[in-house]
Amino acid sequence: MELSGKNIIGNRLSAEGLITFQAENPATMGKLQPAFYEASEKEVWAAIELAAIAFSSYRKKSGEEKAVFLEAIADEIMALGDPLIERCMAETGLPEARLRNERGRTVGQLRLFAGYLRDGSWVDARIDTADPSRTPPKVDIRSMQRPLGPVGVFGASNFPLAFSVAGGDTTSALAAGCPVVFKAHPAHPGTCEMVGRAIMEAARKTGMPEGTFSMVHGKSTAVGLAIVRHNLIKAIGFTGSYRGGKAIFDVANSRPVPIPVYAEMGSTNPVFILPEAMKERKENIARDLAASVTLGVGQFCTNPGLVFYQPDEENNFPTLLSTNLKTGAAGVMLTSYIQEAYRAGVEKLAATPGVQTVLKGEATTGGCYAPAYLFLTNADTFLNDTALEEEVFGPSTLAVNVDTRSQLLRAARQLGGHLTATVHATERDMDDYQDLLEILEQKAGRVIINGYPTGVEVTHAMVHGGPFPATTDSRTTSVGTDAIRRFTRPVCYQNFPQRLLPEELQDENPRGIWRLLNGQWTK
Amino acid sequence: MELSGKNIIGNRLSAEGLITFQAENPATMGKLQPAFYEASEKEVWAAIELAAIAFSSYRKKSGEEKAVFLEAIADEIMALGDPLIERCMAETGLPEARLRNERGRTVGQLRLFAGYLRDGSWVDARIDTADPSRTPPKVDIRSMQRPLGPVGVFGASNFPLAFSVAGGDTTSALAAGCPVVFKAHPAHPGTCEMVGRAIMEAARKTGMPEGTFSMVHGKSTAVGLAIVRHNLIKAIGFTGSYRGGKAIFDVANSRPVPIPVYAEMGSTNPVFILPEAMKERKENIARDLAASVTLGVGQFCTNPGLVFYQPDEENNFPTLLSTNLKTGAAGVMLTSYIQEAYRAGVEKLAATPGVQTVLKGEATTGGCYAPAYLFLTNADTFLNDTALEEEVFGPSTLAVNVDTRSQLLRAARQLGGHLTATVHATERDMDDYQDLLEILEQKAGRVIINGYPTGVEVTHAMVHGGPFPATTDSRTTSVGTDAIRRFTRPVCYQNFPQRLLPEELQDENPRGIWRLLNGQWTK
Repeated sequence: MELSGKNIIGNRLSAEGLITFQAENPATMGKLQPAFYEASEKEVWAAIELAAIAFSSYRKKSGEEKAVFLEAIADEIMALGDPLIERCMAETGLPEARLRNERGRTVGQLRLFAGYLRDGSWVDARIDTADPSRTPPKVDIRSMQRPLGPVGVFGASNFPLAFSVAGGDTTSALAAGCPVVFKAHPAHPGTCEMVGRAIMEAARKTGMPEGTFSMVHGKSTAVGLAIVRHNLIKAIGFTGSYRGGKAIFDVANSRPVPIPVYAEMGSTNPVFILPEAMKERKENIARDLAASVTLGVGQFCTNPGLVFYQPDEENNFPTLLSTNLKTGAAGVMLTSYIQEAYRAGVEKLAATPGVQTVLKGEATTGGCYAPAYLFLTNADTFLNDTALEEEVFGPSTLAVNVDTRSQLLRAARQLGGHLTATVHATERDMDDYQDLLEILEQKAGRVIINGYPTGVEVTHAMVHGGPFPATTDSRTTSVGTDAIRRFTRPVCYQNFPQRLLPEELQDENPRGIWRLLNGQWTK
Repeated sequence: MELSGKNIIGNRLSAEGLITFQAENPATMGKLQPAFYEASEKEVWAAIELAAIAFSSYRKKSGEEKAVFLEAIADEIMALGDPLIERCMAETGLPEARLRNERGRTVGQLRLFAGYLRDGSWVDARIDTADPSRTPPKVDIRSMQRPLGPVGVFGASNFPLAFSVAGGDTTSALAAGCPVVFKAHPAHPGTCEMVGRAIMEAARKTGMPEGTFSMVHGKSTAVGLAIVRHNLIKAIGFTGSYRGGKAIFDVANSRPVPIPVYAEMGSTNPVFILPEAMKERKENIARDLAASVTLGVGQFCTNPGLVFYQPDEENNFPTLLSTNLKTGAAGVMLTSYIQEAYRAGVEKLAATPGVQTVLKGEATTGGCYAPAYLFLTNADTFLNDTALEEEVFGPSTLAVNVDTRSQLLRAARQLGGHLTATVHATERDMDDYQDLLEILEQKAGRVIINGYPTGVEVTHAMVHGGPFPATTDSRTTSVGTDAIRRFTRPVCYQNFPQRLLPEELQDENPRGIWRLLNGQWTK
C-alpha cells in the first residue's frame, strides 16, 4: 500500500487542509515520508455527519453481520503483511517481535469480539411479561442494551496497533453498533493510514454503510476538539496522558449535551512486597520487577512506578533492583515529546527532598533513548508529598522503604486511583495483610498477587480501568469484552407487538441468547 | 413516633445547626410542627465520615445479609402504620389512596432488591482460567462488580415515599453495598424523619455498621453541596428538576476527583397519535391521555407534556382532549414553589407566538391548587422554537398539529432526550411509521405503544432514564433492579488464591450464581 497522507472520510481519501506534518523515526530522528494532511474542520464535520447517517442503518446490523465485519478487519490487517510491521517499527522505534505480538493481539481482539457478538447474550435482554389480571394490570416490559451513536476515538502512542486505529476502543464501539470517527495519533500516522484503510476495505467488502468508520489526522488539538465538541458525537474513547484525557473530559462535560468520556490516563501501579516474600524470594522479585519496569522502555499504562517494601535484615532490595535495572541497554522511546517528558519527570524526582537517586541512567544522544532510573525514599517522605504518586511515563520506578505494617497500610490508604495494584506475598503474608488487599481493591481496577502488572490479557474478565485519575470512568474497562458496554444504553419497549421488537426480545428467542425472564436467567 | 426535627447521624439524632424550617400543608398553606434543624456542615461531614468507616465493613456484607436488611426496612416502614400516611398527606397534599399505593410500591421495591441480592447473579462474575502451557503463560483472571463507596442521595418531592428516603436510589445503593447519606427533601421533612428512623431501626436490628445510613435536613443548597463536594462521597443519586440536577452534575465534575451523578431530571415525554389510531379511537385516547396528564396533578417525571397528532377530517382532537381535561377539579400541588413554577410555565406558553390556549384552568386561591391547561400549536411553530420542548411540571400539555408524515418525522428527529416516548397506532400505522419508532428509540429510555407513560413498573426490565437532558447518564436506570449497577464498578483479581477471592468468584461457586466461565454462562 502506498501511503497517501490523506484523511479517510467514509469511502474516500481526503486532503483539503493546509497544514501537513511528517512522522519521525525516534531511533534516528529522521523524518519519514509522506507528509500527512491535518484534517480541516469541514473534513472532521463531514466524517461525523457521515457517521450519523451510517448509524441509522449500522445500529440495526445483527450480531452476525457485525462479527463478519470485525473478522474482515482482522483479515485485512493481516493482509497488510510485513509492510505494516516495517512502517510501524520506523514510526515508533518498537522492536519487530513486539509489534508482531501486538498485531496478533489486535486481530485476536477483533475475533474475540466477533465471538461475543455471535453469542449475543451481552445485550442483557430482560423481559417482564404482562399480567392483565393484576390491579392495575401489569404491562409487558422488555429491555436490552442499544448503541449510543457515533463515537470519537483517540488512539494511544504506546500501542500503535492494539490501542490505536483498530484497537480496543474502536473494536468495542463497532461491536456495540456505533460508527467510529478515529483521531489518528500523529506519532504513527502511516501505521494509522494502513490500518484505517484496512477497516475501510473491510467495511466495503462486508457491505457496511459509508461512514461506519472514518479517520482524521492532526497534530494540533483542534482536530480532536472538533470531534469532542460536535453534537452528533455521543461518546469518546481515549487512551493517553492525564492532561489530554482530563481536557477532553472537561470539554465533553461542558457541552450543551454532555457525553460520556472513557479516558484511560495511566497510573503508577503500586507494588507491595510483603515481609516473608521479601525474605524468601527477593532476588526473583527484583529480577522480574526490573523486567516489568523496563519492558517496552517503560511505556506501559501498567508500568510499576511505585514499589513499597519492608526491608529484611540485609536491607539490600534497592541494590538488587538497581543491579537488575542496570543490565538493560537504554531503549528508544516512542517520540521526542515522550522522551522530554520522561527526562523532566526523573529530574523532578531526583530534585525532590528526601528522594535518593539510586540508579541514574547514562544520558544518550542521537535518538529518543531513555535509560532506567531507580529512586528511593521512605514512608514519611512519601506520605507528605502526594506528587510522588504521579506517573513518570518511562522505565523509572520509586522504591518506598516502609518500616512498619501500619505505615504500609497508611500509604495504601492514601493512594489515589490506579489501573493495577500488585502484592508479593507468601501464604502467611496474605493472612497477615488481608486488610491491605481490601484497601487495594478500592484503589485499582485489577489487583494482582505474585505477578507483574504489565501484560494485559484480552479476555472476558479483564478490567483495564480503575478509579480516577487512572480513568475518568471507573465503572468500565477499556480491555476485554465488557468494554462494549461503554457504548450502549438500555432501551425499554413497553407493550410492543412481537414483530416490532428486536429479535433479542421476541418470545421465541430466535437468537438463542441468555435472558432475564421474569427474574430468572433462561435461554 | 414523635417527630424530633433532628438529623440522623449514624445511630443518633442530632440538632447542632442554628437554622430551622417547617413543613407546610400545601392544601391549607398552614405550617406543620415541629421545626426541623438544618444540618450544619459539621453534621454533614460527620455523617459522611461515619459512612466511609461503615463502608469498610458494609461492603463485605453478603447478599443474604443485605437482603435481610432491606426486608427489615420494609417491615419497619409498614410498622409506622397510618401515622406515616397521615403525616405524608399533610406535607404533600397527595391523597390517601395514592400514598398507600406508593408505600406498597416502596416496600415492594425493597423486597424486589432483596430477592435480586439473594439470587446474586447481578454481580456479573467472570472467570478466565489460567493456561500455563500457553506462551506466554495465561494467568487466572476473575472479575465482578464491587460497590463504589458512600453515596449521596437527594430525594424527590413528587414521590415522598418511592423516590425519597427509602426510594429507588437509596435501595439500589444499599443493595450494591454502598452506605447512603440522604439529603431529606424540605417539602416533606416529617415523612423523611419517620422513614429515616425506620431505616436506622432496621440497621440496628440487623447489625449493620453505624453510618450505613444517615439523613440530613436542609432548605438551603449548602447542605446538598456539602455532600456533593466531599471527597469521601463516591456517587450521587438525584431526582428532581433540571436546574438542580445539572448544578449537582457540574459541581461533581469540577471536584478534584469527579464522581458519577445519576440525576433524573424529568422530561416532556412526547406522545404521537398516528392517523389510523386517530380515526379509530380518538375518543378513548383523548380520555385516557387526559387522565395521564392530570394524574397526581401532573406531577410525574413521565407526565405527557407534548402530543403530536395528525388531524383526521373532523379535526376535533384538541376539543376532545380539552373536554376530558376540563372534567377534573383543580388538584393540590406539592409545594407553593412548584405551584409558582407551574404558573410561570403556563404563562410563558400562553404568551408564546403561535401557541393557542385551548383550555385555561380557573385560578384558585387558598392553597396550592393547579388547574389543567391545554395548549395548541402547529409543526412549524414547534420546529422553530426549541423552548416548546421544555418541561412544564404540572397538569398541562401542548398539542402539536402536524400536517404531514415528514413533518412528524422532522419533529421527532429534532427532539432532545426524554424518559419516555409514546405512540398510538394501529397495526397499519405501525407498518407505515416504523421509522418513527426507530427515531424514538434513540430519544427515550422507554418507548410505549398504545399506552401512557405515567405509571412506572418496578421490575427487572424497566428503564427509567434516557438521554440528556432527561438524565445526566443515559446508560442507567433509576427504577428497577438494574439500578444497582449505578453504584458499582468491576474489580479484577489476578492470580488470587481461592481463599482470598470473594465467594462469587471461587471455583466451587458456593453462591450458586450465573457466571461467565471462559466465555460460557454457567451456574
